[in-house]
Amino acid sequence: MGSQEEKIKVLKLWVSPYANRVLIALEELGVEYDTQEEDMDNKSPDLLEANPIYKTVPTIIHKGKPLPESLIILEYIHDTYSSFSTLVPTDPYEKAIARFWADFIDNKFWIAEYRIIVRQGEAQEIAKKEFIDSLFLLEEAIQKISGGKPYFGGDKFGYLDIVLVPYVFLWHSAEIFGEFRIPLESCPHLSAWIELVSKRESVVKILPSAEASHEWFTRSRKKALSTSN
Amino acid sequence: MGSQEEKIKVLKLWVSPYANRVLIALEELGVEYDTQEEDMDNKSPDLLEANPIYKTVPTIIHKGKPLPESLIILEYIHDTYSSFSTLVPTDPYEKAIARFWADFIDNKFWIAEYRIIVRQGEAQEIAKKEFIDSLFLLEEAIQKISGGKPYFGGDKFGYLDIVLVPYVFLWHSAEIFGEFRIPLESCPHLSAWIELVSKRESVVKILPSAEASHEWFTRSRKKALSTSN
Repeated sequence: MGSQEEKIKVLKLWVSPYANRVLIALEELGVEYDTQEEDMDNKSPDLLEANPIYKTVPTIIHKGKPLPESLIILEYIHDTYSSFSTLVPTDPYEKAIARFWADFIDNKFWIAEYRIIVRQGEAQEIAKKEFIDSLFLLEEAIQKISGGKPYFGGDKFGYLDIVLVPYVFLWHSAEIFGEFRIPLESCPHLSAWIELVSKRESVVKILPSAEASHEWFTRSRKKALSTSN
Repeated sequence: MGSQEEKIKVLKLWVSPYANRVLIALEELGVEYDTQEEDMDNKSPDLLEANPIYKTVPTIIHKGKPLPESLIILEYIHDTYSSFSTLVPTDPYEKAIARFWADFIDNKFWIAEYRIIVRQGEAQEIAKKEFIDSLFLLEEAIQKISGGKPYFGGDKFGYLDIVLVPYVFLWHSAEIFGEFRIPLESCPHLSAWIELVSKRESVVKILPSAEASHEWFTRSRKKALSTSN
């Protein structure tokens, strides 16, 4: 029966950082998967049925069962395929700290970045300040929790690297819309990390080009600014 | 050395639902702990050092290491003491679904409840509608994921029960401030659950009386309404 498919099916949007982190995780683990591209203005019956509360991507369907929310999906993938490899740290404290920073990346860092993209004037200025404050906190975090090694988790590209990397690919757009420069020269560890992750096979394969993303977010910005005051 | 203390120390506020869920979890597992009551208008150096980003309770200190955020702490406690018992489901899908509902309880359900408490007029009316919609979704959830058994996790009082129970103790205040009645007669499973969890030893021990909480939230409401427009 198709609906009991062993293979994970990812309902996604090509430009969604949330969806792309799930695809990067699956690539990293070498797990086979199917995808279904969603039109967010005309969502599929599959998406509406699998995620009736939020109706967001990514939502996965695995063995006939639906699961939304990218961070929850990442841990599910880790728990399900941990015989292959581990994404999430196994030490309880390291795992907890990774969850703390994942939450920070989504709820502070990305929110600020997104507001730079879709706002203007004073709201955008506040977002720029929040973004830079968050960036410096992330620089401190990677220095501390990596133990001086390249990735958040140390020697291995893992959970927090996957959580953060799709957002980094939108920094150029944030700089253009915000008319500012991200002070990466003050973030040596993050800068080296960006060099490294930008060349990673899974990342290159999954993330859209900066140009295509920029075009998409230019339309999002226009739409957001025309409906706000 | 005191700072390397094996015993968990919980920096807390007596009325905080977030802090109280951590204490209930520790009671349920029979884990010994210390507490330190915080004055949120004059936070302790311990709290500012242990949780410099959010400065919120609960924050725990365990073996000299700090950890904030109640849901992350719950999973840390589970991972650290899972030889005692399990709070969180062990099946990857059940665990993922429990995390999904924990997030919903904090980010939809409680946000609506809190807005009923600290807002008035149209904002409060919107919050009341959101609260009731969320309540009906929780009734559906407990019916489905409990498999018809008393608790969210089935036969055993666990993770989602602990996440939700402190909020339930504030429903009476929400009804008073919102001048409405929570339609519990339409939620038979949740109603039976409330009966059961209200008598639970850990819950009775940890949660403050409805009167004391109501007095505290009456002051919060007055303060919130005087500073908003």
